[in-house]
Amino acid sequence: MKVFEQTESEVRSYCRSWPTVFSRAQGSRIYDESGRGYLDFFAGAGSLNYGHNHPQLKLKLLGYLVNDEIVHALDAYTVAKREFLETFRRVVLEPRGLDYKVQFTGPTGTNSVEAALKLARKYTGRETVVSFTNAFHGMTLGSLSVTGNSMKRGGAGVPLNHVFTMPYDNYLDGATPDFMLFERMLTDNGSGLDKPAAVIVETVQGEGGLNEASAGWLRSLADLCKRHEMLLIVDDVQMGCGRTGPFFSFEDAGIVPDIVCLSKSLSGYGLPMAVTLMRPDLDVWEPGEHNGTFRGFNPAFVTATAALAFWEGEGLREQTLAKGEAVAGALDALADEHDKAITGRRGRGLAQGLAFTDPPAAGRVCAEAFERGLLMETSGPDGEVAKLLPPLTITDRELAEGLDIVRESVAAALEA
Amino acid sequence: MKVFEQTESEVRSYCRSWPTVFSRAQGSRIYDESGRGYLDFFAGAGSLNYGHNHPQLKLKLLGYLVNDEIVHALDAYTVAKREFLETFRRVVLEPRGLDYKVQFTGPTGTNSVEAALKLARKYTGRETVVSFTNAFHGMTLGSLSVTGNSMKRGGAGVPLNHVFTMPYDNYLDGATPDFMLFERMLTDNGSGLDKPAAVIVETVQGEGGLNEASAGWLRSLADLCKRHEMLLIVDDVQMGCGRTGPFFSFEDAGIVPDIVCLSKSLSGYGLPMAVTLMRPDLDVWEPGEHNGTFRGFNPAFVTATAALAFWEGEGLREQTLAKGEAVAGALDALADEHDKAITGRRGRGLAQGLAFTDPPAAGRVCAEAFERGLLMETSGPDGEVAKLLPPLTITDRELAEGLDIVRESVAAALEA
Amino acid sequence: MKVFEQTESEVRSYCRSWPTVFSRAQGSRIYDESGRGYLDFFAGAGSLNYGHNHPQLKLKLLGYLVNDEIVHALDAYTVAKREFLETFRRVVLEPRGLDYKVQFTGPTGTNSVEAALKLARKYTGRETVVSFTNAFHGMTLGSLSVTGNSMKRGGAGVPLNHVFTMPYDNYLDGATPDFMLFERMLTDNGSGLDKPAAVIVETVQGEGGLNEASAGWLRSLADLCKRHEMLLIVDDVQMGCGRTGPFFSFEDAGIVPDIVCLSKSLSGYGLPMAVTLMRPDLDVWEPGEHNGTFRGFNPAFVTATAALAFWEGEGLREQTLAKGEAVAGALDALADEHDKAITGRRGRGLAQGLAFTDPPAAGRVCAEAFERGLLMETSGPDGEVAKLLPPLTITDRELAEGLDIVRESVAAALEA
Amino acid sequence: MKVFEQTESEVRSYCRSWPTVFSRAQGSRIYDESGRGYLDFFAGAGSLNYGHNHPQLKLKLLGYLVNDEIVHALDAYTVAKREFLETFRRVVLEPRGLDYKVQFTGPTGTNSVEAALKLARKYTGRETVVSFTNAFHGMTLGSLSVTGNSMKRGGAGVPLNHVFTMPYDNYLDGATPDFMLFERMLTDNGSGLDKPAAVIVETVQGEGGLNEASAGWLRSLADLCKRHEMLLIVDDVQMGCGRTGPFFSFEDAGIVPDIVCLSKSLSGYGLPMAVTLMRPDLDVWEPGEHNGTFRGFNPAFVTATAALAFWEGEGLREQTLAKGEAVAGALDALADEHDKAITGRRGRGLAQGLAFTDPPAAGRVCAEAFERGLLMETSGPDGEVAKLLPPLTITDRELAEGLDIVRESVAAALEA
Repeated sequence: MKVFEQTESEVRSYCRSWPTVFSRAQGSRIYDESGRGYLDFFAGAGSLNYGHNHPQLKLKLLGYLVNDEIVHALDAYTVAKREFLETFRRVVLEPRGLDYKVQFTGPTGTNSVEAALKLARKYTGRETVVSFTNAFHGMTLGSLSVTGNSMKRGGAGVPLNHVFTMPYDNYLDGATPDFMLFERMLTDNGSGLDKPAAVIVETVQGEGGLNEASAGWLRSLADLCKRHEMLLIVDDVQMGCGRTGPFFSFEDAGIVPDIVCLSKSLSGYGLPMAVTLMRPDLDVWEPGEHNGTFRGFNPAFVTATAALAFWEGEGLREQTLAKGEAVAGALDALADEHDKAITGRRGRGLAQGLAFTDPPAAGRVCAEAFERGLLMETSGPDGEVAKLLPPLTITDRELAEGLDIVRESVAAALEA
Repeated sequence: MKVFEQTESEVRSYCRSWPTVFSRAQGSRIYDESGRGYLDFFAGAGSLNYGHNHPQLKLKLLGYLVNDEIVHALDAYTVAKREFLETFRRVVLEPRGLDYKVQFTGPTGTNSVEAALKLARKYTGRETVVSFTNAFHGMTLGSLSVTGNSMKRGGAGVPLNHVFTMPYDNYLDGATPDFMLFERMLTDNGSGLDKPAAVIVETVQGEGGLNEASAGWLRSLADLCKRHEMLLIVDDVQMGCGRTGPFFSFEDAGIVPDIVCLSKSLSGYGLPMAVTLMRPDLDVWEPGEHNGTFRGFNPAFVTATAALAFWEGEGLREQTLAKGEAVAGALDALADEHDKAITGRRGRGLAQGLAFTDPPAAGRVCAEAFERGLLMETSGPDGEVAKLLPPLTITDRELAEGLDIVRESVAAALEA
Repeated sequence: MKVFEQTESEVRSYCRSWPTVFSRAQGSRIYDESGRGYLDFFAGAGSLNYGHNHPQLKLKLLGYLVNDEIVHALDAYTVAKREFLETFRRVVLEPRGLDYKVQFTGPTGTNSVEAALKLARKYTGRETVVSFTNAFHGMTLGSLSVTGNSMKRGGAGVPLNHVFTMPYDNYLDGATPDFMLFERMLTDNGSGLDKPAAVIVETVQGEGGLNEASAGWLRSLADLCKRHEMLLIVDDVQMGCGRTGPFFSFEDAGIVPDIVCLSKSLSGYGLPMAVTLMRPDLDVWEPGEHNGTFRGFNPAFVTATAALAFWEGEGLREQTLAKGEAVAGALDALADEHDKAITGRRGRGLAQGLAFTDPPAAGRVCAEAFERGLLMETSGPDGEVAKLLPPLTITDRELAEGLDIVRESVAAALEA
Repeated sequence: MKVFEQTESEVRSYCRSWPTVFSRAQGSRIYDESGRGYLDFFAGAGSLNYGHNHPQLKLKLLGYLVNDEIVHALDAYTVAKREFLETFRRVVLEPRGLDYKVQFTGPTGTNSVEAALKLARKYTGRETVVSFTNAFHGMTLGSLSVTGNSMKRGGAGVPLNHVFTMPYDNYLDGATPDFMLFERMLTDNGSGLDKPAAVIVETVQGEGGLNEASAGWLRSLADLCKRHEMLLIVDDVQMGCGRTGPFFSFEDAGIVPDIVCLSKSLSGYGLPMAVTLMRPDLDVWEPGEHNGTFRGFNPAFVTATAALAFWEGEGLREQTLAKGEAVAGALDALADEHDKAITGRRGRGLAQGLAFTDPPAAGRVCAEAFERGLLMETSGPDGEVAKLLPPLTITDRELAEGLDIVRESVAAALEA
């Protein structure tokens, strides 16, 4: 590991929690070079919803590469892109009555968010974007502006402007009516809130501590946006592609955002890929006005197309919800058992976690889990939430095994 | 092609110049679904320096994927990353006497630039970055701020600040001494130029019109930076990895930048990958202060490691310089022949082009080339430069074939 | 009046409500050139707390000018400035146990605010300043940033940044606990609120609609600032110099701001003058780091010194409170009588008004009052408040006369 | 002086150079409380072009005050304002063929500049303003952004944006053609210079070191602005009202700015007053969109009207030019005599100075002059220029007396 310590920047982070060198992975398991296996309740921070190296996707990918099909083509038309677009329309958009246009941005979540922010500002001619407390949207300058974390914001080295932060759902434990302040400021000519171009929101805040917005809150937000002519951007980079059950995390709330950001599990195989979806009438881009070298990484389109097979029918959604209930049950039991140390269960679907009264306890839980052969990470502004993001394709047996390790790890961490 | 027009955003651009659907590619040729082949003098905008689907890289990549090695691991330690780091040190850094630390950023050029800008600001505690006229550094908000193109800047929707633009080498056709203004403003307490954190520069401005900085100009710039304690960032995203001959485009000038951005051809196979290199004492990042989901896309590390084999010895560099001379000869002849229509030859190595008096002529040249089975694009603020970026691995025969097509296309375009 | 319409910019405003040409004024009365007198319940927007051309001040001013004493001296030491400083310390600061240092800024309220904001940012090294909904702090770019009014903000022509707006006291009609959101955001590392340099507040928002902060709210705010190391700036430009009773409007709340802005009635005679008061340890200015040509307008120091005679003893304060009660009684009666049209009484001391359900009604009240020989203006984000700012030195008889006109004007305006 | 040191902020500056307490002043002389007189070659930093307490102005002012005419009226119509507007049109605008509308801003130069910047941005819908190296436009945030001095900029505490700095006339000692860079950047779509709303310029940079723009340079600038649809703002706060000879300092260049800022000597008596003049079609302000409490300080209108009597006929202009020649002669002789220590003479009209090779020498000259009974100050980014700003009304005898002191002071300072 010395070469890493000598040559890789101090910015490296996950490797500090998991001091080993990984070499292979399959499904829900990842192995280090000594051959030790780990159950993966981290799933590439939500990029591996179908597990590692899923055989169906792998076969498509290998076939594509073997045949010398197009790897890199910027935004030239390719067969692989056409198949992705057709499949995405047929499997995802049409059954949900959605009519989005698709922008292939640089292949990262933050690039999809940057494109969304630029488009919203261009379309409305306004600068301010409203984001929420504990939001996480990315590390490039535009996305960082709408991100809440103070350490990450401090890294910008310049003030982060053109943003106004509103409290997320239940931020004040129910002590104030939802959106009362927001609506008052929008209707008050003296509020100091310059009319926003857009609101950007996550339905569940993965990095922010697995805070979840209720369906009612999301509907009220969508309604507020409509009434005040603000565009609604849902950043579904982490919670989309089925992480909470449905393909889009906002489906159950019955809302239709104006712009949607997708990345992470979109390619299904861990290949970099991102898109920004937009209402057709918002598509006011000039050709090339936002571009990027790797926006046409075609192998990702191939695995993404293959991964959409999981979304023909309701199977995956139902399984995810069922597994989510299993997780909820296990975590609720832990929260009951350790009611002083654990504030409560957070999140939904297969994005759940436990919040600890003493933030370092969450980190100790993850460390104990690693010792026991399970990967999981913390989230939240103080790292106070131990976060479970297993692959959606995890077997019930693996899930049970992992939850057992979580239980032991919590006990061990709280004893310490 | 209807599905693209109906479903893909209007932001798409290259497809407008090349109205066909590509399916396969090998070496310097790319084929559309009708089977027609095109010589590729575009090379993924500089991302395919070793051509499409190079067999040596392909074999490594297929072997890696077949064996279920790690695809996605954020910044956990992996075998593939270790091999890349070791090889990069041995083949690239050590022989050149360089001692950089390596940050794996999100896998795009703009992300590498964003990291560089953040680090320079954090390290110095200053905000202003100096960039140059006609610079191109990317489309996310931080990189866009240091980019010159007015159409792209307009897409931001917010003012782009914390930047001061200086004239690039020969911007005023030699009418003013290099850096006279810059140095005067730095030493004048009343100049209004807030002391910069850094200067960011491309040695040849690929998107800006193939403007090239001379070795002397670059040395003077490096010297200016040292004397005034500004960090020197070289954005080698397009010109690095051998595009102008040496691995780093700044080698021949004998300068050592404080920070270097690499991406595009780094993976060698068109796989998204980017790094930011920094002087070790600049590595003041907190763990996780800049991150990104796809910063650990390991298949790219595998092909990147394999591609470094091209850099053992001086062969590739010499071949590129020789091919560059062939290109220069052909373009000079064209510039002589059409001396009213063509302003002159631009660029160096295998990044060269012809600047046209009437900007649309450059576009017509590219259109004629496409008709004749050659892909090339325009660059420059008015699209006035027809730009040749063939793979470094192109055969002499293919190069000659392509230059013939260029010759015919210029003639046809200027007759029109 | 034609010369005004032809030659003066369209930005002129008060003259549109009072279409006559004024020539003389004495005490609470102002006369137009036809000789018609008006009771002045406007008092130079709070700049004439001692009425027009008060004889005591006038004598001092005439004597000073006649003797060719210093009129303009930038910040050279002068006899007049020394007398002001000594008197201000003796009469204002020492009896209140205050230990401020005095900065003479450019002679306007907005300049005092700009100095306060700069000092707070310099001292703390932070950028963000928290201001409140419906705040008014001035029209230059720094002050405008912390001002709420959307029409005024729109005039900036650039985005107004480095500011976060919090709800003022009772902004949501008691539906949320005071400062709950503010404190939560300060203690939450993920809130997106960059740690503020300072909070700037008016104790009663004169332009914002005569919203008043309670003593308890102000104390909580001061406490919040102390606990989170934010500087507390009270902008007492309009409410200071006795407008609400005590010399400083924050005295009754028992708080001691870190920085205080004074202007308007400070000179007592309508002469431009402003100061910024600061805790001595905050005085980290470099000599000349903030300056301004008219910061040493000595005749204003002379009348300001003379005006401080009003503050020897408690007389003026008690009279103001008593007159304020008379005003409150009259306005309450009106609010009762017209309970559908009038939302309620606003403000305190001699800064009170009536808020109307239908905003234009407030404007009609002022127009009716002008017809009846009384000057008063509207305030609030929609101009919905008819605002009474009589001189503190108004006689009881004049006050009663004015309140009668207000009563008639309200009746007439609501009948219309 | 102890009360000053204990009570006045450290920001005080001129008093540090002139450690005495002033009490009276008449014409070109100012007296301290011990009765010692000083010739005033400072003139309130250009605010006292007609000397201290000019008898004609004083009589008008006393008469106005004695009769209880209006002192403070915001922007209500008054007799005094009407007389000023009529006289200003008749004496200043009409004879020069100018057709400006007049905005009464807050009564300081910086406020006039803030209004100009806001109007230019509002009118054009653009944000960037171009200013020049070593410009000085004021200390409030908008004006400070277009000011060059690094110490003053540092006081902002926030980054100063929306501005691009160009080299002033002769900034590079003739090594580059005027405006070559500026024009190139304006016409180059890739220059990174966002299309400017306006250019703001001083014809002679008073604070910046008495750098003067030639008539030809100013004409080229005006022409550039016209061709590129940028508004031309002349900040004539210090150089206007006859300081360089003509009423407007730009008259001799034959240009007509779109917007002009006036303050300092406008009232003629040291009373705070400022206006922004604008081409009538630029007057797109909403009523009250830019305002300020002391924009209607009527005694200043009275003395300003009286002062315009100096401008009936060509007398003052010619006398100023003649006196300017006398100053130039004396300074040229000094520069010749001390050609190693003195870089050269700077400025024109009655705004001239000597630049010293060793910057502290200029300060020592001023200190020696103070010892000898003459007030003068330094300017320039390093305080390297000893600056002479005598009243325009100085007698030839006083001027000669002062120049003698300057001569002795230079000798003494250079001996030290």
